[in-house]
Amino acid sequence: MNVPVVLMLTTLPDAESAGALAQAVLEARLAACVTRLGAVESHYHWKGALESSEEVQVLLKTSVARSEELQRFIEARHPYETPEFLVWQADASPGYGQWVNAETQRPLHV
Amino acid sequence: MNVPVVLMLTTLPDAESAGALAQAVLEARLAACVTRLGAVESHYHWKGALESSEEVQVLLKTSVARSEELQRFIEARHPYETPEFLVWQADASPGYGQWVNAETQRPLHV
Amino acid sequence: MNVPVVLMLTTLPDAESAGALAQAVLEARLAACVTRLGAVESHYHWKGALESSEEVQVLLKTSVARSEELQRFIEARHPYETPEFLVWQADASPGYGQWVNAETQRPLHV
Repeated sequence: MNVPVVLMLTTLPDAESAGALAQAVLEARLAACVTRLGAVESHYHWKGALESSEEVQVLLKTSVARSEELQRFIEARHPYETPEFLVWQADASPGYGQWVNAETQRPLHV
Repeated sequence: MNVPVVLMLTTLPDAESAGALAQAVLEARLAACVTRLGAVESHYHWKGALESSEEVQVLLKTSVARSEELQRFIEARHPYETPEFLVWQADASPGYGQWVNAETQRPLHV
Repeated sequence: MNVPVVLMLTTLPDAESAGALAQAVLEARLAACVTRLGAVESHYHWKGALESSEEVQVLLKTSVARSEELQRFIEARHPYETPEFLVWQADASPGYGQWVNAETQRPLHV
């Protein structure tokens, strides 16, 4: 049986800020895996003008249970005024889905 | 409250055609953001043989309201006979979702 | 009318293993197109430590009818102990969707 998990896509200004976000998210156990994709070039309207930026795209994989907390965590730390932040549900294979759920268990504070 | 938006994935032969498509789509206010990902290598069957091509992958983000019009726009201008054209819905964070909706308002013709 | 198709995302250790998987999948007619994306850097917990790996991300496009068989095929051949394996449904444009369905017809054994 496949396991539902959550994919989150965002962009960061550079590899350094993407790496820092990955580290913070993993230490908080809010995602099981953070994939930094290569450089991308985004084209968009911003305050009335056509702009483009080099960015780094990041795909995070987390459990359904922790996805809202991950979103709040990223929104609080993201360097942009209006970051790209996209979420959708996917099915993971049983082994990968169980791993995602296990790695995003909330740490015990005893 | 997260906001539903539409993701569209297509591939173009090179960075130049990807840039031209991004520009046309944004000028028509049919997407809020067009992200050109790095070069990809596609492997596929075509007319009976195994082929591979270097391509440029493009991810477009638009509103639910404008997604059908964006699809028709791209299909009419795409240089391939049978372009890759994939669409799925995602949830955007409130700020990003409102920005996508605002940037894809149909222009007023007065 | 758009046509439902299935997207599958996995990662492989390098371009060579990604190319071999693409070839095997296409020869078995289990996907219509396999896109090898550029190098990615994955950050994750593994057996208690924070790890990162350079990997190659692969996006496969197949029909709804063949997606379970594709998943079993990849799980049986993937070099990792717990490979990333994510699946979600998308809508393809009519032309692309019909092509995906046609290219993933099970071969006749007569």
